[in-house]
Amino acid sequence: MSYSALEQHFEQLHHLQHLGAICGWDQATMMPAGGNEARAEALGTLAVLCHQQLQDERLAGWFNDAGNEVLSLQQQQSLKEMQRVWRDATLLPADLVRARSLAGSRCEHAWRSLRKNNDWHGFLPLFEEVVALSRHAASARADALGLSRYDSLLEQYEPGMRTHTLDALFDDINQWLPGLIGQVQEKQGHEPFLQPQGPFATDRQKALGLEIMTQLGFDFNRGRLDVSAHPFCGGVSDDVRLTTRYDENDAAQALMGIIHETGHARYEQGLPVTWRKWPVGQARSMGVHESQSLFFEMQLARHPAFLTQLSPLLNQYLGEQPAFAPENLARLYTRVKPGFIRVDADEVTYPAHIMLRYQIERDLIDGNMEPRHLPERWDQLMQHYLGLSTKDNYKNGCLQDIHWTDGSFGYFPSYTLGAIYAAQLAEAMQQQLGPFEKLLTGDLTAVFDWLQHHVWQHASLLSTDALLTQASGQALTVRPFRHHLEQRYLS
Amino acid sequence: MSYSALEQHFEQLHHLQHLGAICGWDQATMMPAGGNEARAEALGTLAVLCHQQLQDERLAGWFNDAGNEVLSLQQQQSLKEMQRVWRDATLLPADLVRARSLAGSRCEHAWRSLRKNNDWHGFLPLFEEVVALSRHAASARADALGLSRYDSLLEQYEPGMRTHTLDALFDDINQWLPGLIGQVQEKQGHEPFLQPQGPFATDRQKALGLEIMTQLGFDFNRGRLDVSAHPFCGGVSDDVRLTTRYDENDAAQALMGIIHETGHARYEQGLPVTWRKWPVGQARSMGVHESQSLFFEMQLARHPAFLTQLSPLLNQYLGEQPAFAPENLARLYTRVKPGFIRVDADEVTYPAHIMLRYQIERDLIDGNMEPRHLPERWDQLMQHYLGLSTKDNYKNGCLQDIHWTDGSFGYFPSYTLGAIYAAQLAEAMQQQLGPFEKLLTGDLTAVFDWLQHHVWQHASLLSTDALLTQASGQALTVRPFRHHLEQRYLS
Repeated sequence: MSYSALEQHFEQLHHLQHLGAICGWDQATMMPAGGNEARAEALGTLAVLCHQQLQDERLAGWFNDAGNEVLSLQQQQSLKEMQRVWRDATLLPADLVRARSLAGSRCEHAWRSLRKNNDWHGFLPLFEEVVALSRHAASARADALGLSRYDSLLEQYEPGMRTHTLDALFDDINQWLPGLIGQVQEKQGHEPFLQPQGPFATDRQKALGLEIMTQLGFDFNRGRLDVSAHPFCGGVSDDVRLTTRYDENDAAQALMGIIHETGHARYEQGLPVTWRKWPVGQARSMGVHESQSLFFEMQLARHPAFLTQLSPLLNQYLGEQPAFAPENLARLYTRVKPGFIRVDADEVTYPAHIMLRYQIERDLIDGNMEPRHLPERWDQLMQHYLGLSTKDNYKNGCLQDIHWTDGSFGYFPSYTLGAIYAAQLAEAMQQQLGPFEKLLTGDLTAVFDWLQHHVWQHASLLSTDALLTQASGQALTVRPFRHHLEQRYLS
Repeated sequence: MSYSALEQHFEQLHHLQHLGAICGWDQATMMPAGGNEARAEALGTLAVLCHQQLQDERLAGWFNDAGNEVLSLQQQQSLKEMQRVWRDATLLPADLVRARSLAGSRCEHAWRSLRKNNDWHGFLPLFEEVVALSRHAASARADALGLSRYDSLLEQYEPGMRTHTLDALFDDINQWLPGLIGQVQEKQGHEPFLQPQGPFATDRQKALGLEIMTQLGFDFNRGRLDVSAHPFCGGVSDDVRLTTRYDENDAAQALMGIIHETGHARYEQGLPVTWRKWPVGQARSMGVHESQSLFFEMQLARHPAFLTQLSPLLNQYLGEQPAFAPENLARLYTRVKPGFIRVDADEVTYPAHIMLRYQIERDLIDGNMEPRHLPERWDQLMQHYLGLSTKDNYKNGCLQDIHWTDGSFGYFPSYTLGAIYAAQLAEAMQQQLGPFEKLLTGDLTAVFDWLQHHVWQHASLLSTDALLTQASGQALTVRPFRHHLEQRYLS
């Protein structure tokens, strides 16, 4: 049966990806510096093998035949997702793939030092090459998929999402967000708060993190917590490797980071056991993945009811201090302050950083803007959204992110889509189970069971639209997100 | 050029093995229990890929053509070693490989509980199947290689070693070892010593281990120390992963274990950078590998001059006590006591355990003995060598080792060959650099430089015979080993 041949073939791919995930995690957490060259080579060979696995000439025939076999609904969806992965891996000509990979590596590598030196002019020619090749790739993808150029890139990270939907969401947000930011800042200007006084020893922070992960239902029989320079949630569903980093002067960084990654981790651990070897058993999209981390970090962990529970733990693990009082934590963890750097942004200003990037990358890919105009456009949009100028400040402006350096256009919207999905899920959960004021008091099992039932177990068996609709009774809407922000930050 | 095609092909194999080594290390040190099934599957797929890499139909032609290409001497040796690996992987028919692998897994898996229950009769039928298939394999190997059956197995672990050489070595040892064991016991009966008093906290033992590894020249930029149930030296040459286990009541176990594994590790770290991607750049044999760990653990670390240096470190890291005086350490670390268990045996009785196994496995493979007679033969040989009876005591007798359960016949001699090589190298080193009494005082650089020059850098560029001859000026001889034992234990 062609369908079983496909299952076997993709299971093998999954095993290769497993080895890559663990060796990648090791590289970031355990590997001594001197091992890097050999590791990079080994992972390079693995990447080639994974690629070859998807170039196998038998695949086209199997897909063709499997379409005529009698399959269950879930198998049909599994077939569709395998086909999506295969199509994504095969629709670009090999020399374009190679050229993009080379240009991307070159630009990303140079960016690491160019950013430090605020060197936009050194960056520009490398970036122009990346953009040119990304436009080619987008055209080829667009032709093959029957989509617009930018949509064809978006499709890689957020299957089913389209520019017209994004435009509608972001237009909506654009109408009220700048005003909201102003109002919140005005309000918070009158609200004094205490800054916790460190230092907080790393081993105490780690103990606290493990305690919180336990309370958040992380399964330590199928995962672990370690340290890396850039926190991530890696490994495989059966063995989730979560990382953080500790700052002795700022315990909130590791704490909130761990809670965020635990959201990603529980999604992974909650994926359906029967399907997790295949694409259909993996996370629905980058946005849905981010919705889970943001649900944990923003919806749940910064809610006053959760902070009331967190307060005694902070006193217990980090030493008692007035700053750990619940009311103070609530103010501390919901401070809003427009800033240059996306990754440091708070919940309210974050969408502004994303909309700015979305507008720029869409125009870059569609050919409506040239790379050389990037700094000017960035400055102009930063002024519009956050009232900040990045003129001549490239390192804290258009050079701050890694994404575009290797041509990952179409990824940024996932962050804010995640926030919107999370708010929609949180609203639905409260309508069905009762308000967070009660739900986040004590045992959180009901919360996680709801997510397991409505999100995690569906993996990619449902489209994102269907996932949201079955969970919330309505299609994607930005209203709960706006409501959440107004509720939390203005009331 | 066919030679470069081969190099590229075997480099790819090396990369796959790298991924396997790291994921195997992770499995033993880091992986939570729940991750095991997925990991086993992923590693299984990798094993198949490595196997396929060596079944590639182009290889025969490449080897054929490369023989006619102009190659440097080192390239010729590299070609020879690639061919050896390829031949080993291809000379058995696929169904015999599969049958052996199945029978071996089954027997090894059952052995884990059967041994605990002292259940010889449950073990026997499984073992008979393993022996039968190993005989088939040995016959096929023997035909293809023009060797005797047992030699064809030996060749996998100890290239170039033959039964007639082993018989000569072991006959020699057999003539004096039982007498020596008696004399040493007699002598040590009159030598009182102090047992160190624990407990010794794990973190102190680890700090001591790291200090010793540093003194022994372990490169922490290309390796690390962790904990696993069964200590090993894994990873790759550029990133050596060494493990140990800690017993709070017995600090010597981890300490001597770490020193032993550091010997393996320095060999790996000292392999020639230019060649380490290919078979010719890898360890010469199991025996040569073991010679390095035993050089570190036995020749070096139990030498009075080294113990004089170790003594203050023990006091510093584990707390001062009279048992850590150099003279007491010398007695403590050279106690000889015949026992049932090979892995717990001291330097003097260890060869007896090996000779016993050698005699049995050679007869099993050559068909001169049947599996059902194993316990009787074991008991008889234990009585001969060590004066101990294992009658009805299977778990501490013929069921104690894992090696035979999956058909690894021909491996055991490597342990004692390692001890013999180590003694021969130690004697040569002292002839060239001066006696250990002076050489092991203070900085050990000269010792390691000598090993780098005479052993490590040669990897598999030389045969074991040539390696020993260039290092010591003479072919393999058991004399230095006997001299070492008499010197250390009787003088």
